[in-house]
Amino acid sequence: MEDLIIDLLAQVKRQKPLVHNITNLVVMNSTANALLALGASPVMVHSPSEVREVVDLAQSLVLNIGTLSELTAESMLVAAEHANNIGRPWVLDPVGAGISAFRNDLLANLLELKPTVIRGNASEIMSLYNFNQVNTKGVDSTADSKAAVGYGQALQEQVGSIICISGKIDYILSEQYTVEVHNGHPMMTQVTGLGCSSTALIGAFLGIADQPFEAATAGVALLSLAGQLAAAKSPGPGSLQVNIYDELYQLNADRIKADLNIKQYGN
Amino acid sequence: MEDLIIDLLAQVKRQKPLVHNITNLVVMNSTANALLALGASPVMVHSPSEVREVVDLAQSLVLNIGTLSELTAESMLVAAEHANNIGRPWVLDPVGAGISAFRNDLLANLLELKPTVIRGNASEIMSLYNFNQVNTKGVDSTADSKAAVGYGQALQEQVGSIICISGKIDYILSEQYTVEVHNGHPMMTQVTGLGCSSTALIGAFLGIADQPFEAATAGVALLSLAGQLAAAKSPGPGSLQVNIYDELYQLNADRIKADLNIKQYGN
Amino acid sequence: MEDLIIDLLAQVKRQKPLVHNITNLVVMNSTANALLALGASPVMVHSPSEVREVVDLAQSLVLNIGTLSELTAESMLVAAEHANNIGRPWVLDPVGAGISAFRNDLLANLLELKPTVIRGNASEIMSLYNFNQVNTKGVDSTADSKAAVGYGQALQEQVGSIICISGKIDYILSEQYTVEVHNGHPMMTQVTGLGCSSTALIGAFLGIADQPFEAATAGVALLSLAGQLAAAKSPGPGSLQVNIYDELYQLNADRIKADLNIKQYGN
Repeated sequence: MEDLIIDLLAQVKRQKPLVHNITNLVVMNSTANALLALGASPVMVHSPSEVREVVDLAQSLVLNIGTLSELTAESMLVAAEHANNIGRPWVLDPVGAGISAFRNDLLANLLELKPTVIRGNASEIMSLYNFNQVNTKGVDSTADSKAAVGYGQALQEQVGSIICISGKIDYILSEQYTVEVHNGHPMMTQVTGLGCSSTALIGAFLGIADQPFEAATAGVALLSLAGQLAAAKSPGPGSLQVNIYDELYQLNADRIKADLNIKQYGN
Repeated sequence: MEDLIIDLLAQVKRQKPLVHNITNLVVMNSTANALLALGASPVMVHSPSEVREVVDLAQSLVLNIGTLSELTAESMLVAAEHANNIGRPWVLDPVGAGISAFRNDLLANLLELKPTVIRGNASEIMSLYNFNQVNTKGVDSTADSKAAVGYGQALQEQVGSIICISGKIDYILSEQYTVEVHNGHPMMTQVTGLGCSSTALIGAFLGIADQPFEAATAGVALLSLAGQLAAAKSPGPGSLQVNIYDELYQLNADRIKADLNIKQYGN
Repeated sequence: MEDLIIDLLAQVKRQKPLVHNITNLVVMNSTANALLALGASPVMVHSPSEVREVVDLAQSLVLNIGTLSELTAESMLVAAEHANNIGRPWVLDPVGAGISAFRNDLLANLLELKPTVIRGNASEIMSLYNFNQVNTKGVDSTADSKAAVGYGQALQEQVGSIICISGKIDYILSEQYTVEVHNGHPMMTQVTGLGCSSTALIGAFLGIADQPFEAATAGVALLSLAGQLAAAKSPGPGSLQVNIYDELYQLNADRIKADLNIKQYGN
């Protein structure tokens, strides 16, 4: 898997896939910078009047419901349907799943459109499988990622999407395989939107990879690796955020071989 | 007061209060990062369809009118009313008070709902007390904070809120007491949204403190202290912003005792 | 031209012009910080209910269509018309020109209002002159800035605006003169919104300068110079963004004389 990720990273740098983001207002800037640092080309467009044309131009689509409005809810549905119609892969970040009926309704509609990949924290994945049954606290997870694996597998079977669960250990789940990523750093929970950046990087890899499972693994793994490398030189979350961009920019085969810590096994 | 602030900071780190922000688009990312660096848990939700449910979940509410729209104006009124109904404390940041009739109308409606705390710069506090009578220049203050203390006291009497005025000296005003914070640094005026971060930190302390006056003092004082400590190692406003997060993250009893410079006196 | 730019910079620091931005959601924070670091005073207001009043207060107007919505499209037209009526200079950043009919329609309407200055990358300027004829890829340019000079000159003749084209070499075009800026650094393309910051700085200089051509040259030249100086000390795009603010803050006559590399010639 390491060699594969190294190859996918080289492809992103060479092809600079255009990644269409309909994302939340908190992370627009940081998401764009994460994609640029990796080597992809972000475009942020959310008006219902033009999302179809941008889905046409882009190689992949990222939907992130963090700061949902009636307008962006409509745009997301239009964009996801159009992506399905023309065969574009798309990734869903169900930020704050479970905090309101409005949000759960949109998520239910988006799940019916069968996202290529879904990435969330433990609370979000548990909530997605089991609307309204989970004790959610805002947008930060109240559960350990390991506790959500069973829910993630059930969600995978239900929707057919690749499921990614971020946490102390990150999990990437397909019908046949599980990948565990043992990178990252606890301080990453004190920078806003790093999960959203992980989702965006999945979007970049979806834009160039044949297999969604491999794209999801590359996106999750490289964000966690960059975070771990950055944390080693950061006295706090301010410098951590800045150093993550620098590390994403500098990622190469040697660093990946030296520090990436992933395990894959069959289900 | 120092020991109290140290204790309140420890409570924030332990309880991680969920702080609901309906805030402006310029500072969404920096506000979330300031709250996370301190130890709180931010959630940014502004759709009228879900603000009530998030007020229910959160321990406090932050309203910031910087980039006002018809939509967020409605959300703010709904959220503030609901916060009052269920006894949640809330803080108002009247960014750009006085620059338009639309803004002044919303502010008049919000004042009727009696915010727990109001924090602004000198121009904003003067404008709030005396709509349309002040010579406002955009969102940066044209007056010294000291010149606004009289207006702040009158506003305190009128509305009953704790009033905070940011500036070279920060003032926190209650019916009985005044606190002066003699921390901060002039370069802080060349980073956008540090006043908004101060407001958000007040929100974090409102989420765990019994006394709004103490929460307001802790929020204002610790942002100014972090800014001062950060400025000492920053060649310009870019690194200042980054270092403020690192300093907020590292704040502890020793630093507060060594460098916090506040005075309290009766009115 | 160097001495002129030095003088204009001193004027910005002294007068702190209020720059009204109706800009895109990705760069609101970074644009505000670039303006503050230079010494100007940004205000971000986009509600149709209050844009006229803020145009009245401000010395210049910046319109950036990056994350266009029906609402901001309306606000931009209202603001540009009002700016023309009261004689305020304004600069247009046609982000993503050509990616949709919605965007091209708004741009056609804005061109009729004759912006004082237009700044874009090569693809955007080529698309503006020749709607729908250019092979656009999202918001990053697919063409070299030199290839767009002819289009820029034609656009200049057509609309009468000063035209700025960002790229490896930046071009500033008036009816009579061309300026080339040979500063900047390739890593700048991996930070989001630096072109938008360049546009915002043009706005700051328009707020204090008599000649739009000189204002445009100062804005473009100083952002590229700050980027070049920052890149020399930045291991990646994260630190580059931070260091650009520090460099903008520290710009002075000595640095400009030592490192600014511009050429002016008649057409």
